[in-house]
Amino acid sequence: MNDAQRQALAERLLALADDELILGHRDSEWTGHAPILEEDIAMANLAQDELGHAAIWYGLHQELTGQDPDRLAFQRNALDYRNVQLVELPIGDWAFTMLRQYLFDAYEMLLLTRLRESAYTPLAQAAAKMGNEEIYHYRHSSAWVQRLGLGTEESHQRMRRALGELWPYVEELFVPLPGDSLLIQAGVFPDLAELQEAWRQLVQPFLAQAQLPLPDVPALPVTRQDHTEHLIDLLADMQMVARSDPEAVW
Amino acid sequence: MNDAQRQALAERLLALADDELILGHRDSEWTGHAPILEEDIAMANLAQDELGHAAIWYGLHQELTGQDPDRLAFQRNALDYRNVQLVELPIGDWAFTMLRQYLFDAYEMLLLTRLRESAYTPLAQAAAKMGNEEIYHYRHSSAWVQRLGLGTEESHQRMRRALGELWPYVEELFVPLPGDSLLIQAGVFPDLAELQEAWRQLVQPFLAQAQLPLPDVPALPVTRQDHTEHLIDLLADMQMVARSDPEAVW
Repeated sequence: MNDAQRQALAERLLALADDELILGHRDSEWTGHAPILEEDIAMANLAQDELGHAAIWYGLHQELTGQDPDRLAFQRNALDYRNVQLVELPIGDWAFTMLRQYLFDAYEMLLLTRLRESAYTPLAQAAAKMGNEEIYHYRHSSAWVQRLGLGTEESHQRMRRALGELWPYVEELFVPLPGDSLLIQAGVFPDLAELQEAWRQLVQPFLAQAQLPLPDVPALPVTRQDHTEHLIDLLADMQMVARSDPEAVW
Repeated sequence: MNDAQRQALAERLLALADDELILGHRDSEWTGHAPILEEDIAMANLAQDELGHAAIWYGLHQELTGQDPDRLAFQRNALDYRNVQLVELPIGDWAFTMLRQYLFDAYEMLLLTRLRESAYTPLAQAAAKMGNEEIYHYRHSSAWVQRLGLGTEESHQRMRRALGELWPYVEELFVPLPGDSLLIQAGVFPDLAELQEAWRQLVQPFLAQAQLPLPDVPALPVTRQDHTEHLIDLLADMQMVARSDPEAVW
């Protein structure tokens, strides 16, 4: 790879890592608060997996840039994070959390399938490693979407509301970074337009079958440089320990 | 087993389950707040394991009593929990958390070894299932105790302070429940006096070698019926979702 490709890949890896870190943090807010004990355990497991994926992506980023993963995770300002807003939104109720997870899991599962074919071998290997976990995540969240969409009037209404709130944020998952075209040419990263089409073909019939019609709301015109105030609150909470004494591990 | 033995066993299983549930909840408070990413992941894993153990013990309790595990976990009042106070204390700093975990892990690891020999087969099988996880927990927390005890002056002082705070709570782990003697006679549950002696022989030399002298503080005269105000705060937080609508899972 040439320098421009390496830089483009580093930026993409940071975006991948940040999505997982922030979503993992949101998931962890449920541990000990889920509606049933089994889901408590499932949420702790999910948080662990997502944070583990973040660590893998930060690790690949480090191989290219030499930057310390812990420093990246815990010591940047909000504006320097590259996650999508979808993952930084507060956890809301159980319906909101499970639907967000479903929308993201579908994206991640399809993305990982494509990344397994990446011409950059470390990326392909990492994607292969995460793939099975992600299939399990998808099964878990899609089962909940179905259960709640087709459940009681209350659960159905909560899912409808959650879908209305989440839908405008989905588009950002498929907005390319400036360097992505270099990576696509080199066979390192997939074309996000194709990924979005595959995502639609998976998600839309599934939601329809769970009696969740797509809301008529426009996509938000945002990129991974833009964040909500919720990210600032999340980071204040997440970075509290690390920032209190950057050198100490006690 | 006769009725008295079954009742004694149900009470002991509840104590085992509650310790794991409350400790798992405390562990989960660290996820997303640990000092480094690797420990974030480790704490999510720990929370998941402890909550998983709680679910197993509540499940065995259910086989004897018919009581619903989710109801037990999320819908009792503080006075009805049977966990030790050691696990309900707030997380404190990283030193406090790791030392508490170490003291408890040593107890749990030795207890599980003995429970594998239980005359009550489901208990023996459950203990065998958890045993390997617990050895991993013990390795993790003991490595931290060593690292922090022998680390910087700051980390050493924090560990000394944590040991002073935690030590009075240790004794409660080894206080028998009223029905335990029936279980010991039947070979179902081990003698806690013998367990305490084995625990001392494991823990005391280890702490000494980490330059953590035992503090000269008396044990608190408490039983599993007694709780601190911290349990009330923890339950208010943990039960918020479940209590908001006991019938709903949305």
